[in-house]
Amino acid sequence: MFDVKSMVNRIVAGDGRAIARALTILENLDDGSDLLREALYPYRGKAHVVGITGSPGAGKSSLVDGLIDVAKEGNRRIGILAVDPSSPFGGGALLGDRVRMGRHSGDDKVYIRSVGSRSGSGGLSPAVLDMLLPLQASGCEVIVVETVGAGQSELDVMHVADTVVLVLTPGAGDAIQTAKAGIMEIADVFVVNKADLAGATALVHDLEYLLMARQDVQNPGWSPPIVLTSAISGSGVTQLWVAIREHLANAKKSGQFESRRSDIAMRSLVGKTAGTYRALVEDYLRLHPEWLAQLSTEGPSRALASRLLRETVRADILH
Amino acid sequence: MFDVKSMVNRIVAGDGRAIARALTILENLDDGSDLLREALYPYRGKAHVVGITGSPGAGKSSLVDGLIDVAKEGNRRIGILAVDPSSPFGGGALLGDRVRMGRHSGDDKVYIRSVGSRSGSGGLSPAVLDMLLPLQASGCEVIVVETVGAGQSELDVMHVADTVVLVLTPGAGDAIQTAKAGIMEIADVFVVNKADLAGATALVHDLEYLLMARQDVQNPGWSPPIVLTSAISGSGVTQLWVAIREHLANAKKSGQFESRRSDIAMRSLVGKTAGTYRALVEDYLRLHPEWLAQLSTEGPSRALASRLLRETVRADILH
Repeated sequence: MFDVKSMVNRIVAGDGRAIARALTILENLDDGSDLLREALYPYRGKAHVVGITGSPGAGKSSLVDGLIDVAKEGNRRIGILAVDPSSPFGGGALLGDRVRMGRHSGDDKVYIRSVGSRSGSGGLSPAVLDMLLPLQASGCEVIVVETVGAGQSELDVMHVADTVVLVLTPGAGDAIQTAKAGIMEIADVFVVNKADLAGATALVHDLEYLLMARQDVQNPGWSPPIVLTSAISGSGVTQLWVAIREHLANAKKSGQFESRRSDIAMRSLVGKTAGTYRALVEDYLRLHPEWLAQLSTEGPSRALASRLLRETVRADILH
Repeated sequence: MFDVKSMVNRIVAGDGRAIARALTILENLDDGSDLLREALYPYRGKAHVVGITGSPGAGKSSLVDGLIDVAKEGNRRIGILAVDPSSPFGGGALLGDRVRMGRHSGDDKVYIRSVGSRSGSGGLSPAVLDMLLPLQASGCEVIVVETVGAGQSELDVMHVADTVVLVLTPGAGDAIQTAKAGIMEIADVFVVNKADLAGATALVHDLEYLLMARQDVQNPGWSPPIVLTSAISGSGVTQLWVAIREHLANAKKSGQFESRRSDIAMRSLVGKTAGTYRALVEDYLRLHPEWLAQLSTEGPSRALASRLLRETVRADILH
């Protein structure tokens, strides 16, 4: 086992190798991950966590690259977690991100890490919330969580980020697909990227229309701006950064920042608790094949589920 | 409350309004949904459940329309559940599908129903598995579950379908995005739709390459075919239907049909049990705010989650 205290000290000193090691430990829930998490927890909360999501090919990565350059101007330390929904049977992140990381390598103010979605759900790995801790402890003022747009992980961004940015592109009925996937409701800032393409104006109109219809459960005091960008030419990226920071200021003023963070923590706690229970039930069923017979007779009924819940609780699966 | 027995009789007699009512009851978990599910369960298992998934805009709906026409030739009764990942705050299915259903309306051999993903996860509603029952009871030999391609629901299809069909289109780096999302591993049949477009051959080569790399955990005895189709011209649709039925025959012969169905049932049971537990924990936390104080001190640690699990079990949350 590693020395938690010295690792934390190295992380706080900004030691990239310690950060990398810590992220791996937290991602894989290796031995000591709980102790490490606990030791890092006091350093939390300084950073502004920005979630960036959108359809594949919307140009998120280039946009994030641009944002990094703008954000760096304040001499800020920046962390990026690039989330890859990866194979349910495989796991791990893909080449693309690694290549793209090269651009900022050697820049000790920028830390980029690719994260697989180990859950195999296509969703955001539950570990991502914990993986923010080493970056926060290392002094990152801004942490960008970039998700490859795939339904679940797009929605999950809401459960880690202070500010959610949705990147859309003209054409491809993006706005409609988005309305379907329910991302409209969770985005705090909208980006129309590749704004030089035909259909950009139409997309903006679609968005304005959909936003009018939207009842903002997230933050009544905030009407999400629509920023036009061209990641290639770099136009609009500064305005995007300003919009992102304005949302942070607004959310802190309205108290929504704090309430969203405690919702996030609560949801994570419930998720970990239910996940632990679920694993125990799976073990229990392996040891009690009689339930399989029952299952094949009546199928996965809610009645059978309740009986199983009672039984597992009664059987004290915890020991 | 409705009369379960008479509803089941009407469903078995193929009464469309009874089927519709039953699907709504099961989808919304209305009063009596458990009784209804139980009464329908004996009629399960005759139908071949075919999951059709792929990126938005891949042309799944037109392809399904074509399949319906081919499948109908055997004078079969066919059911379609079109799954719409819908708003986490809204819910319900979208216009497009309703419009499209018009084409088969009045055809008493074809029953089409649009399903929202109430879970708001962007994933497949847990109710879908139960919603197969009225369709099976009404004598459907084939039930197509069509999911709007969005990471989670694409993967979830594996958890309801006997045969999973993945629809891809030339260009848009579809094959690569697919490899990312991990769908490659779960598809039993691959479709290159819009095969008349440039890049179709390249896509087929990409697929063949990725399929070579794939270790088929699903069914060692089956190498997934790649079918070229043009939903518009209708070419290839018959070959697709043949490939789908060949997979069924192969899976029944290899025993993979049965083993996948029991995996599906097991997974559903565990999911419902963990879901019930999760809801109880959320209630428990509402009644015990002291945990919130603890949460804000140490954050959502796994240690806190274990303590919460123990506490809820000890506190006998079931009464």
